[in-house]
Amino acid sequence: MKIHGIPYRSLWVKQGDPHTIQLIDQRYLPHKFVIEEIRTLDEIASAIQEMHLRGAPLIGVAAAFGMYLALLDAPSDQSLEKIMEDASSRLKATRPTAVNLQWAIERQLKVIRRMRSKEEGVQLLFEEAQKMAEEDVESCRRIGEHGLRLIEAIRAKKGGGAVHILTHCNAGWLACIDWGTATSPMYQAFDKGIDLHIWVNETRPRNQGASLTAWELGQHGVSHTVIVDNASGYLMQRRKIDLAIVGSDRTTATGDVANKIGTYLMALAAHDNGIPFYVALPSTSIDWEKREGISEILIEERRAEEVTHIQGLCDGEIKKVLLTPRETQVANYAFDVTPRRLVTALITERGVCPATEEGLLQLFPEKRMPP
Amino acid sequence: MKIHGIPYRSLWVKQGDPHTIQLIDQRYLPHKFVIEEIRTLDEIASAIQEMHLRGAPLIGVAAAFGMYLALLDAPSDQSLEKIMEDASSRLKATRPTAVNLQWAIERQLKVIRRMRSKEEGVQLLFEEAQKMAEEDVESCRRIGEHGLRLIEAIRAKKGGGAVHILTHCNAGWLACIDWGTATSPMYQAFDKGIDLHIWVNETRPRNQGASLTAWELGQHGVSHTVIVDNASGYLMQRRKIDLAIVGSDRTTATGDVANKIGTYLMALAAHDNGIPFYVALPSTSIDWEKREGISEILIEERRAEEVTHIQGLCDGEIKKVLLTPRETQVANYAFDVTPRRLVTALITERGVCPATEEGLLQLFPEKRMPP
Repeated sequence: MKIHGIPYRSLWVKQGDPHTIQLIDQRYLPHKFVIEEIRTLDEIASAIQEMHLRGAPLIGVAAAFGMYLALLDAPSDQSLEKIMEDASSRLKATRPTAVNLQWAIERQLKVIRRMRSKEEGVQLLFEEAQKMAEEDVESCRRIGEHGLRLIEAIRAKKGGGAVHILTHCNAGWLACIDWGTATSPMYQAFDKGIDLHIWVNETRPRNQGASLTAWELGQHGVSHTVIVDNASGYLMQRRKIDLAIVGSDRTTATGDVANKIGTYLMALAAHDNGIPFYVALPSTSIDWEKREGISEILIEERRAEEVTHIQGLCDGEIKKVLLTPRETQVANYAFDVTPRRLVTALITERGVCPATEEGLLQLFPEKRMPP
Repeated sequence: MKIHGIPYRSLWVKQGDPHTIQLIDQRYLPHKFVIEEIRTLDEIASAIQEMHLRGAPLIGVAAAFGMYLALLDAPSDQSLEKIMEDASSRLKATRPTAVNLQWAIERQLKVIRRMRSKEEGVQLLFEEAQKMAEEDVESCRRIGEHGLRLIEAIRAKKGGGAVHILTHCNAGWLACIDWGTATSPMYQAFDKGIDLHIWVNETRPRNQGASLTAWELGQHGVSHTVIVDNASGYLMQRRKIDLAIVGSDRTTATGDVANKIGTYLMALAAHDNGIPFYVALPSTSIDWEKREGISEILIEERRAEEVTHIQGLCDGEIKKVLLTPRETQVANYAFDVTPRRLVTALITERGVCPATEEGLLQLFPEKRMPP
């Protein structure tokens, strides 16, 4: 999507220099726009680990390029097998719970088996990483197409005025390569000239809404307002929201949705006020093995510092401030599970379906168990 | 309640010096404990306006002492009527929407009509302000007594282990003179030796939970954990909360509750999980004229800066940092309305009642309309 009017992706191969990967260093957003150049496995591993980039799809693609850089950069006296093994464990250790990371590395390991020389291997890994990036773009673009039709239907029903959409966290293009998941229908509606307004939950504790989604939307020119998460219920109660679209970190085969902490509260308020609540997700994030989100999905507990401290701009510098009494005990649950009964529909790259097992199987018939 | 083991109130007359009011300057909490000394009308008006103190009951008592200081401090060549009129408009302008402020000033204006000399007036205003402080303490103490019985009942039902209570914002003793409203049952249970644990919502945007409630509870020795507001639904879903107690800024005659933004979301999650959701309130905050909270209670919109910036401790200094992109549009709704259907019961100084018109009238029969 656009930054200062120029189309960007979150990560790309430097023009004219295939040995260099460029990416937007998200640690400084929204205050500073920094492009980082990556040339080695170590650099990409650090970038993933220290969250220069985040978002499951983007992490996957970054890791795929990491495998390519590892081979490109490797001393010629090392066995190729050992190089790939080391790179794979180095990358997997950066974010141990990220499913896409494992998946992207496995895919590169499969590719490498076809190579007959180091040169060919480098070429194969490069092409596969680029293919994964393009696949992600295409998947997000399709989610946007399907979601756009939902927005158009709501606009038609509404008659006139802007369509007001609530979103939580950053399921935006900064979490993917382009388009985003939850934001893709918004960008497509905007690009088509549909009058819309996005209400952006700041999304404590890491404030990805206030710092990333607000920045994304602002750069692309989409009208939006940031609110504290607490205000989303009020807005729905007062009919200031027409629909909600959020992303998903993991969706069960039955339609339960694990997503950023607070999503469940938004879904409750949407349900209480008869407002459609949509979840946009690439099918790669469906966990076909799981049936009951609340009992089966393990919720990550993260560092207390994400709650006790917050980063912001002060006198032109990015600083962290302490919010709580110094010795206060803090708990930091990263996700919650929204039961399928609160989800109006799932928006996938193959289309829109009810948040039910049958709904998902209609779109993904290859997942049906043989009778 | 206690600070470093010593009993405190939020505001008091300096021992041995009735010309000086002392108060805890809440702007620096939880990072610095500052006691401010107030000797003039101007000083108390600034303290209210610039939120050295906040919370409806405390603001009322502070304003009552302000009227006293105004007369005490007045030059002898001014008419007493003019002094009182000026003081009254100066104080009323500090927080125009605070009902208790108006009420406290009117009460002092009524008292002053009885005086026959300036000296007597000063004495009467001083005594009335002290009486109002004591009445608030007594009202909060009784709320605590009634709430304590609810906690005891839940403990009995639970069998063993700590009773886990969720609270939102600061309906604590820092918002009153002592005890607090929502916190009063907690302090009484704690003082009685009941094993309890308080889950404290940080309460964006002003973070009164993280900065004031957590500090209060910590100083008094009550076990507690701070969470982001988004996490309260998760905790209820996982049965980590036994009951919720919140305060109220205004309650309708029918039991709808206006309280700090986000309360509605907590109530929805409590209801969805069958967890009792109690609202503690002094009857002075009941608006007997209003019947439908959502349509009749006007919700204050506050400055964007409360959302875009946050205050915290950085390198030993209290600093404000910017959280959003510099030009992002922000909305800041201060309160929301929790419909009575989501409230298990109201805890008042006269007892516990259902959140219904009949429930309230049973406790406050003098409010029944003549047939």
